[in-house]
Amino acid sequence: MLNKKLRPVNLGKIQIEDRFWKEYMELVRTHVIPYQWDALNDRIPDAEPSYCIQNFRVAAKREEGKFQGMVFQDSDVYKWLEAVAYSLMWHPDEALEKTADETIELIAAAQQPDGYLDTYYIINGLDRRFTNLMDHHELYCLGHMVEAAVAYYYATGKDVFLNVAVGYANCVYNCLGTEEGKIPGYPGHEVAEMALVSLYKITKDERHLKLAKYFIDQRGQAPLFFDEECKKNNNTCYWDDTYMRKQYYQAGKPVREQDKAEGHAVRAVYLYSGMAEVASETEDQELFEACERLWSNIVTRQMYVTGSIGATEHGEAFSFDYDLPNDTVYAETCAAIGLIFFARRMFEITKDSRYTDVMERALYNGVISGMSLDGKSFFYVNPLEVSPEHCEKDYFRRHVKPERQKWFGCACCPPNVARLLSSIGGYAFECDDASVYMNLFMGGQVELELDGNKNIFHVETNYPWNGKVVVTVENEQPSFFSFAVRIPGWCVNSCVTVNGEKQLCELEKGYAVMKREWKNGDQIILDMEMPVTIVEANPLVREDIGKVAVMRGPIVYCLEEQDNGTSLPQIYLEEGQPFNEKYEGDLFNGVVTLTVKGKRVSDEGWNGDALYRTYRGKKFMDQELKLIPYYSWANRGIGEMTVWVRMK
Amino acid sequence: MLNKKLRPVNLGKIQIEDRFWKEYMELVRTHVIPYQWDALNDRIPDAEPSYCIQNFRVAAKREEGKFQGMVFQDSDVYKWLEAVAYSLMWHPDEALEKTADETIELIAAAQQPDGYLDTYYIINGLDRRFTNLMDHHELYCLGHMVEAAVAYYYATGKDVFLNVAVGYANCVYNCLGTEEGKIPGYPGHEVAEMALVSLYKITKDERHLKLAKYFIDQRGQAPLFFDEECKKNNNTCYWDDTYMRKQYYQAGKPVREQDKAEGHAVRAVYLYSGMAEVASETEDQELFEACERLWSNIVTRQMYVTGSIGATEHGEAFSFDYDLPNDTVYAETCAAIGLIFFARRMFEITKDSRYTDVMERALYNGVISGMSLDGKSFFYVNPLEVSPEHCEKDYFRRHVKPERQKWFGCACCPPNVARLLSSIGGYAFECDDASVYMNLFMGGQVELELDGNKNIFHVETNYPWNGKVVVTVENEQPSFFSFAVRIPGWCVNSCVTVNGEKQLCELEKGYAVMKREWKNGDQIILDMEMPVTIVEANPLVREDIGKVAVMRGPIVYCLEEQDNGTSLPQIYLEEGQPFNEKYEGDLFNGVVTLTVKGKRVSDEGWNGDALYRTYRGKKFMDQELKLIPYYSWANRGIGEMTVWVRMK
Repeated sequence: MLNKKLRPVNLGKIQIEDRFWKEYMELVRTHVIPYQWDALNDRIPDAEPSYCIQNFRVAAKREEGKFQGMVFQDSDVYKWLEAVAYSLMWHPDEALEKTADETIELIAAAQQPDGYLDTYYIINGLDRRFTNLMDHHELYCLGHMVEAAVAYYYATGKDVFLNVAVGYANCVYNCLGTEEGKIPGYPGHEVAEMALVSLYKITKDERHLKLAKYFIDQRGQAPLFFDEECKKNNNTCYWDDTYMRKQYYQAGKPVREQDKAEGHAVRAVYLYSGMAEVASETEDQELFEACERLWSNIVTRQMYVTGSIGATEHGEAFSFDYDLPNDTVYAETCAAIGLIFFARRMFEITKDSRYTDVMERALYNGVISGMSLDGKSFFYVNPLEVSPEHCEKDYFRRHVKPERQKWFGCACCPPNVARLLSSIGGYAFECDDASVYMNLFMGGQVELELDGNKNIFHVETNYPWNGKVVVTVENEQPSFFSFAVRIPGWCVNSCVTVNGEKQLCELEKGYAVMKREWKNGDQIILDMEMPVTIVEANPLVREDIGKVAVMRGPIVYCLEEQDNGTSLPQIYLEEGQPFNEKYEGDLFNGVVTLTVKGKRVSDEGWNGDALYRTYRGKKFMDQELKLIPYYSWANRGIGEMTVWVRMK
Repeated sequence: MLNKKLRPVNLGKIQIEDRFWKEYMELVRTHVIPYQWDALNDRIPDAEPSYCIQNFRVAAKREEGKFQGMVFQDSDVYKWLEAVAYSLMWHPDEALEKTADETIELIAAAQQPDGYLDTYYIINGLDRRFTNLMDHHELYCLGHMVEAAVAYYYATGKDVFLNVAVGYANCVYNCLGTEEGKIPGYPGHEVAEMALVSLYKITKDERHLKLAKYFIDQRGQAPLFFDEECKKNNNTCYWDDTYMRKQYYQAGKPVREQDKAEGHAVRAVYLYSGMAEVASETEDQELFEACERLWSNIVTRQMYVTGSIGATEHGEAFSFDYDLPNDTVYAETCAAIGLIFFARRMFEITKDSRYTDVMERALYNGVISGMSLDGKSFFYVNPLEVSPEHCEKDYFRRHVKPERQKWFGCACCPPNVARLLSSIGGYAFECDDASVYMNLFMGGQVELELDGNKNIFHVETNYPWNGKVVVTVENEQPSFFSFAVRIPGWCVNSCVTVNGEKQLCELEKGYAVMKREWKNGDQIILDMEMPVTIVEANPLVREDIGKVAVMRGPIVYCLEEQDNGTSLPQIYLEEGQPFNEKYEGDLFNGVVTLTVKGKRVSDEGWNGDALYRTYRGKKFMDQELKLIPYYSWANRGIGEMTVWVRMK
């Protein structure tokens, strides 16, 4: 049953017209994509040069020079092209497409006769290629190249880039493998696995699926390839003297035997996404079960309430069960995005809202927190508790920034945000021939072929600030299909009506599924109560004991110093106090803020002369507290912030 | 008035016969000193070799070889000799003294004609000596050599070692200074400052005091010597890319302008101790005021409730005001010892119990926690909260060990504990010609010359488990002097009687001062109520908000997993619950333990399937809690521990 999976909707058939999301998409289109193009071409005055395009020009022998930048610098242009592709789908732009075509032409010019394409080795010496798969990212670049080429093919129908990607994929297929004469290696940084399955869906070339499956099955087999590679090529492994060794690469043992998410969080969820793709495509139940175990470990042991993952800076990695520090946290934006990739694939196999619920959690919190509201700066790390003084003075929080940064030496997050947001409509709906799934609630319209007819669904909503979602069906012929609406896990009371008539359908894996003949003008209304909800963490999460988080709908809230003063850890919420909800149109592009009567620890009697004294009992002062959506923090300058608040 | 200071009592005149302390002293004498001798001679099977004695043999040309071990390896034998000296004072031991004499003879044989003595440069090339004062510890070794030589001179009257030390001190005096042709440097790791003042007190050679004062005054002057040294000799400074730069060495600015304790904590308090010595010896009020500011910053902003200091592993350093994490803490045993050195000197100048109170706090908690009850293993880091799983798996807590270690590559703490404990009696009493100060309460006797007569004070007590201290005066002639008893800051109700008569003396800077003629058989009884006290931290200490610590007398208590189960952060104390105190003679060599009714967060409804849920209100289970003295933790195997406990 694994292969009966849903499929994404072609982005060209989705028009998002949503107060919340359209703003982000337009920011990406009008600001982030042009800015990144300048960055790739070293035209940002204050930023370190990227050298990305220059490396391609050198590799294509169009100019003299040496390789510069990170070993995986090529991937930046691929991510940019992928974002461009998605953007072109919903906003055609001749000039942008021309720039993209020229860039693809440059990339193609750098490709070697056997298909190889990694500028680092093309410039530095092809004799060393594939000698450090562990750390040198040739296969990571392959993955991003393929993802971009696939997206660009869907967006434009042009196959130049696709053919480049096929060429490199085939080159890798010819060089890597367990067969005699091949290198039995696999990617140090995963992503090619899922990308190759996407490629296979277009090419139907078995080699592409086989290569993806090989990467997954070979990973972690004894003797460990990375160890052998180190010995053979005299490479060193940075992680060998730490608790985390080959686990950093998810290569400590075969993936089918893994049951805890471990190591570099982005790599991990990219791998798991690839595993889900291969499991589905090859009907591999065992592999799917490994995915389920790993998923379960993440969401029941290692995920922040914001949907962020990766608790430690050491290796940008998962740490261990229930270890979720809020202040020294890593929670990389890319990792939350990767979790969305994984969630989407697991949903496509299972049609279970367990996955799409997490997708929504990560998207509205841990992902969009990564970008400023003006699209000009980005968080790599998304802390749940920040003290600017600690960020400055505590060496072990130097990765935690109290304000978003313009660009990064390792610029993975901004382009990742860009490609996700510019394809966000594709996460809202999934379909097969007989069903539509509405996973996320965003205004706009989507056109789908169902029951042999064109059906257009018009969605109106003010989500996430309001829980009402109105879907109107437009078709020329009545069509029989099922329309499934996700009833979010956070939602306790909801009501679904069709043409005003209440639907009493039982939920199927979290979805209200309405299977019927749909006529033009039929109107589905989902009405979700969206009260403020106080959330507690499992008491095995040490850092959250005695504390609560505040949510409303899918939105996690936080306290900022700007509204609540310094020393936020001194603040307590009080049980039973009502929250006052207010939509503030002028704040952060429009958000619902919350105010509530709370308390602050009294500093009475503390005159600065002492650190310790005989306990005088819990003493508090009243304080009116204001909470804002977590994703919108750090848009008003530098200050403290906290998601988890003590409960009196 | 600064020079009117009290003086330590000759250890030869103190006999400690105390249930609590004699055990430690005997452990040091019978176990630690012999073990360390074996370590210095590379005879411990499982431990890394020290190479210390071997380096001296090579330097003395008694064998061939290269320098091995840390650049400051010489200091280990000096610390050992200092501990030996103290031990010989209260327990003569011919064989041990012979070994010490032979060792001193070896050290002397390594000394160069101009007095220079650092085996690293003697072996590696004297042309490079004094070219890296910042990091190469030649002056640190001088300091420990002098301290040991002074102690050995007091213990035995022999001057061989003293002359070696004088020779090296004079060599340094001749080479370092602001005069033309000298190197304007000072120690990277302080300790020589206070040592040279001790030497001066014996030699009365102005050069020794001048050198100490020069080290202090030159420190941090612009242009920074360490910067100049780096440039000139092509050295690199490890700290230049961190928030902490020359501050690591307390050399960011002149010491008189410093008002925050900063950088490497041991170095800092060693420096401050030296500053206090020089301020007193040279009547330097300005320098003394700098000491007071730095003291005040430590005890009101940067000291753990255990008297430990140094909040961060990064540089083994002070961090910043109110930053006192309990779990990632450094709190090096040596730093707490150094704080005692500083406290003692400040007390000697001021006769103020503000200092001796801190001395007691550090001694009974942060210092003796550093050694196991069998004297066989040691903590370098003294955490206030430990989870063994975090120690193993959290890279940023890898310095925090859940069990004491046998020996360390950098073996500074064990010999430091040894020299402190074997001279502990000297911290109990201080005197001048007309007064005795009883600072610490330990059984035994001390003989002092007062009012021209020999007076012997017999002390009986079961401190710290019981607050009654009985002092009986023995003299042949009635003698007029003042007897001052510290009334500890933790003590709310106390009573002092002389021959049964209640003394209503006003406290003078925390001391009950009884000035009178004392006759043979006079008996002073100090009776301190010693109830369990709950302590809270200043609410600016984020990590302790909502939590309390439990003390009884000077002893800080903790919860251990062995008594209270895992997940200690789930435990709450409840206001108003009475503590049951019990002396357990068989536990940890005899301690008072505390039991109390407490609570544990209920795990009801948490079945492992979720990390987060809608808040259900605070739910608790009853739990009988047991607390043990903090210093005795980790003597029953590995487990969790916490000092700060949530208060319901």
